Amino acid sequence: MRHTGKHALNLHRLKVFGNRIQLQARRGIASEIKEEGKETLVVLGAGWAGYQFVRKVDKSKYKVVSISGSTTFVTTPLLPSAATGALSFRDIVEPLRSTEDVNYYHAWAEDVDFKNKVITAIPAAKPIFRGKDPLVKQQQRDARAETVAEATSEYQIKYDKLVIATGCYNQTFDTPGVKENAYFLRDIESAAAIRYHIYEMLDSATWPDLSDTLRQALLTWVIVGGGPTGSELAAEMHDLARSKEFNKLYPTLAPQIKIKLLDAAPAILTNFDKALSKYAAKKLKRDGIEVLTSRKVLRVEPDKIVTEQDGEIPAGLVVWSTGNKASPLNETLESLQRDKKKSFVVTEELQVLNRPTVEGQRGEVVPDVWAMGDCAQIDGHPLPATAQVANQEGVFLADLLSGRISDPAKRSFKYVHRGTMTNIGGGEGLVEAPFANVRGRLAYIAWRGYYWISSLSWRNKFNLAFRWTQNAIIGRDISRI
Amino acid sequence: MRHTGKHALNLHRLKVFGNRIQLQARRGIASEIKEEGKETLVVLGAGWAGYQFVRKVDKSKYKVVSISGSTTFVTTPLLPSAATGALSFRDIVEPLRSTEDVNYYHAWAEDVDFKNKVITAIPAAKPIFRGKDPLVKQQQRDARAETVAEATSEYQIKYDKLVIATGCYNQTFDTPGVKENAYFLRDIESAAAIRYHIYEMLDSATWPDLSDTLRQALLTWVIVGGGPTGSELAAEMHDLARSKEFNKLYPTLAPQIKIKLLDAAPAILTNFDKALSKYAAKKLKRDGIEVLTSRKVLRVEPDKIVTEQDGEIPAGLVVWSTGNKASPLNETLESLQRDKKKSFVVTEELQVLNRPTVEGQRGEVVPDVWAMGDCAQIDGHPLPATAQVANQEGVFLADLLSGRISDPAKRSFKYVHRGTMTNIGGGEGLVEAPFANVRGRLAYIAWRGYYWISSLSWRNKFNLAFRWTQNAIIGRDISRI
Repeated sequence: MRHTGKHALNLHRLKVFGNRIQLQARRGIASEIKEEGKETLVVLGAGWAGYQFVRKVDKSKYKVVSISGSTTFVTTPLLPSAATGALSFRDIVEPLRSTEDVNYYHAWAEDVDFKNKVITAIPAAKPIFRGKDPLVKQQQRDARAETVAEATSEYQIKYDKLVIATGCYNQTFDTPGVKENAYFLRDIESAAAIRYHIYEMLDSATWPDLSDTLRQALLTWVIVGGGPTGSELAAEMHDLARSKEFNKLYPTLAPQIKIKLLDAAPAILTNFDKALSKYAAKKLKRDGIEVLTSRKVLRVEPDKIVTEQDGEIPAGLVVWSTGNKASPLNETLESLQRDKKKSFVVTEELQVLNRPTVEGQRGEVVPDVWAMGDCAQIDGHPLPATAQVANQEGVFLADLLSGRISDPAKRSFKYVHRGTMTNIGGGEGLVEAPFANVRGRLAYIAWRGYYWISSLSWRNKFNLAFRWTQNAIIGRDISRI
Repeated sequence: MRHTGKHALNLHRLKVFGNRIQLQARRGIASEIKEEGKETLVVLGAGWAGYQFVRKVDKSKYKVVSISGSTTFVTTPLLPSAATGALSFRDIVEPLRSTEDVNYYHAWAEDVDFKNKVITAIPAAKPIFRGKDPLVKQQQRDARAETVAEATSEYQIKYDKLVIATGCYNQTFDTPGVKENAYFLRDIESAAAIRYHIYEMLDSATWPDLSDTLRQALLTWVIVGGGPTGSELAAEMHDLARSKEFNKLYPTLAPQIKIKLLDAAPAILTNFDKALSKYAAKKLKRDGIEVLTSRKVLRVEPDKIVTEQDGEIPAGLVVWSTGNKASPLNETLESLQRDKKKSFVVTEELQVLNRPTVEGQRGEVVPDVWAMGDCAQIDGHPLPATAQVANQEGVFLADLLSGRISDPAKRSFKYVHRGTMTNIGGGEGLVEAPFANVRGRLAYIAWRGYYWISSLSWRNKFNLAFRWTQNAIIGRDISRI
């Protein structure tokens, strides 16, 4: 109930907000304590699908166990804003443990034994008695890790019902040097690394006796992938480089920053209507962002990116954002039916299937196991790997398993496309909605409004509103933290 | 003018705030551009002394060059709050570049040639083309670093006048294992590492098949040093462990957290009046913090700390906060007069002295070179190494070199003790002021008020006020970022 109240913009909100203080007292149910006499419902992954499901599912019916390698849910579409400092990292994360009545384990699901209903998990938090510290050599860290090796072993978790929402990894098409020399933009850690790196490049570029060539290289930032993430990051980086605050800090360097947006396709933002996509490309180019389409990246090196069409492009920062690849778990679970991309093939009720004995046939339903989000595809009804799809699947499955869906006709998942939005910088956006296509300032406001509404906690609504106000009144925050 | 306006609570403030938007346009003067026809005034270090000096000194008289290994000034007394998440890191830092009309270099001062007036600097930012990333092995990082080795060499900077305010390092008394296995709390990086580590310990402690011994070890956090920093950190950690939000996240673990505060002296907070110090110790003990005085630490190991009196204390986190040690520059500059602790001996005008030919005599003044803050001691008038002293020295020297002090009698530095404050947790504080000693709630409010007033930018006044309100209304932020 309260969760729903938090979602749609309605009067529940105020009630919820007003009740918080009393509620906190009642929120005593343990994250770790096991409740007996209930079926154990284990959820792997805590992205848009998994986290949404965990929040919505009826905890009076199940002992819910959430397993994720990340300790927070991230409002991923806001990562570009965070990576460039327009938002603080804390504004866009929700600690997974803050969901009541859920047993959370900070771990990776390594394997599943569907016959005995057992998951093998590897702890994601390791009790190294001193945290990650760049000043400490890797060997020393490993040495310390060994002192508590006994504790770092894998462990088993039994389930009665299992929901797999482990998402995917970044697609590099095995391009040489990407993993070593480029950043991805998928989680808070990578966003923080990108922001830190931006300032590192600028502070390096201030050295008095630096060659102009190297300086220009340090100030050339390349984004590979013209999808929403890549384009937004390019736009946000441009906004940062052109911001008053930034130009005050780096008056001679900021104007030298070059942002290049590469894509293999002949256009960017191809998920949008052609007119909007064209408009966005024009807008980005007008802003001075170099949009290089129909490009084939040959390799990424520590200080450059090499394409078939341009040859070597010296670059101080390369961000790689070219779509999805099956996660290790999709590779491991060979007993399940998977499509060409190794995504789990699921029914319209999101149940996983056994690998069919005869190729091309449809396998049998695996009892008590569901899959959704980027790691799964509905048999015969492929859907895009977007937050919106994952979100709706999470809500649908939560209702289904909570017995909230009586009408049998409604027991199969139907995706409702609510439109697509993006921020193209300079206070402009794109909105492609069923009722209309909007671009420019209004679309930008809609973009913000949407994430304000869908940012999940009151804390973060509070934070986002504050941050946007702060940026408008006293200027954006330019600290590298 | 504007800076002074920002300091004392007076009407200038509103004017300043109102002018900001227009001001930003005028703030075009480069951090990197060199201005000719002015004496070059180089300032080493940007702590309380150096940063205060740089902000206050008359830039129309000098081309000011600030050299610091950190890119931000940190309101150090708020580090314990940030390390435990009561404040966001961005709330307590000021980017050094945001000071107008200052040429900032992100570098360490390696050596000074006083005869030729040249500083040798080592870049603190290295153009490694991919940032620090724990996932990337050290070797790979080094490999990348080599590709741009040509750029990572040291460089020279000439000065006409030089101010040394390089502070000090942490004193470990060469206790084995401290550098490798304990955290210091001196900068943002260490505060962030501590906060990250706290959550890493808790998430490790949630593993189902963990031995109780190891779990208790993970949840035992030891702070060595009962000075203001150590005591405040202990208090803040305790507040975190007892907070509603934290207990909601870790209901069974939070109560198991044990905090131990060790000190070599027979009492803690000895910088305070005896009665206040006693009160603080009682308060901390009453809260369940174990205060272990007259302790000699033999060594720190990855998973324990060993003292002469207690033997082995298994501990998941050890923070070391036992005062100051001369920084490398104090070791290097042997041509200057230094006291037993290797601090630079300075005149009452804060000018450094040549090493005397005869031991025990006073050396001659080195022309155009000043030193202040924790790295220096006034000949015959030793002062405590506090932010307050450094702060006042910075203001004094800025006035002196800006020609604002006409009265010769006022040309020697006089320290005015404005009192000492600390936060002892649970909404209580200590204030020792010339006019009165206060303790409890009122002192806590004074503690906050003081840092609100002295937090340097409008952005941070805004942030601090917001954060404290937020913590009060919707609870503290418990994300590990």
